Amino acid sequence: MNNETYSWQEALLYNHKMAQLSKAIWKSIEKNWQEWVKPFNLNLNEHHVLWIAYYLKGATISEISKFGVMHVSTAFNFSKKLEERGLLTFSKKEVDKRNTYVKLTKDGIQLFEKTIDAHNPNNNLINASLPLKNVYGNFPEFQDLESIVKHLYGDEYLEILERSLESVRHEYKMS
Amino acid sequence: MNNETYSWQEALLYNHKMAQLSKAIWKSIEKNWQEWVKPFNLNLNEHHVLWIAYYLKGATISEISKFGVMHVSTAFNFSKKLEERGLLTFSKKEVDKRNTYVKLTKDGIQLFEKTIDAHNPNNNLINASLPLKNVYGNFPEFQDLESIVKHLYGDEYLEILERSLESVRHEYKMS
Repeated sequence: MNNETYSWQEALLYNHKMAQLSKAIWKSIEKNWQEWVKPFNLNLNEHHVLWIAYYLKGATISEISKFGVMHVSTAFNFSKKLEERGLLTFSKKEVDKRNTYVKLTKDGIQLFEKTIDAHNPNNNLINASLPLKNVYGNFPEFQDLESIVKHLYGDEYLEILERSLESVRHEYKMS
Repeated sequence: MNNETYSWQEALLYNHKMAQLSKAIWKSIEKNWQEWVKPFNLNLNEHHVLWIAYYLKGATISEISKFGVMHVSTAFNFSKKLEERGLLTFSKKEVDKRNTYVKLTKDGIQLFEKTIDAHNPNNNLINASLPLKNVYGNFPEFQDLESIVKHLYGDEYLEILERSLESVRHEYKMS
């Protein structure tokens, strides 16, 4: 044991296990996501930009970068492609000239809503999570994962996630 | 509510939350992993191939593909690059001529062990997990994630993970 209250081996095992589990789950989600948005001529990153700008009712490039977990230049380049397709507009705010602000156009909103309508809940992740739902009554909350993400990316990440989830709940009139 | 005991909205919210959490955690692990193995002139996939072949004491390309969560052609191509560097050999087994079998060479074993020696446990994931460890006494087990991965990839995935973890424990004489 070292001063940091964990042994080198413990850390290696935990890192390895988390690498395997998170890679497995993310790659499965990534594949489903790509298949979902491909018919709309969008890739995952482009759809993620639309998602963030839609649910946050406009977002800065740095918010998209942070919440989308993509490099600032990636966030900008995919936003630029969406702008060229007339799906969003760039602007600067009077009060904050440093940040580029992204807002969906009518076409962007319409396309994004079409993708949501086409969302098939019967995907791999849902099916793989049903046994847990059958045991607990709800889909798992993963508060431990939330805690780790909070410490990796800061409180802001979970705040944006909560705003985004709240917006989905509100949009579709959930209690 | 539909026949499958969950509503469309519930599934959308759960999918969105899991996408955000798993992307955030995987991208952080990926970054740390790349930084860790870069000094050895390896990329993440190459190191993952070495990892799997090392701890499973040899592996087939399809095991590497499955456990490494990479396409069979990706697993083969990165293995090929490692073979060209003299770090592993390809072979066929008498009993099973269909599968290509990967085994590390002495150089491959030596290089892999050097990477493990260089593993810095003080990385982002560990630091972000310490608050949970302080609460629970151990790093989180994530049995819910294991259940989901089991249903996504089959029992075999967790069996290989357990063999790999067991091998790490044995290698470094953990109780």
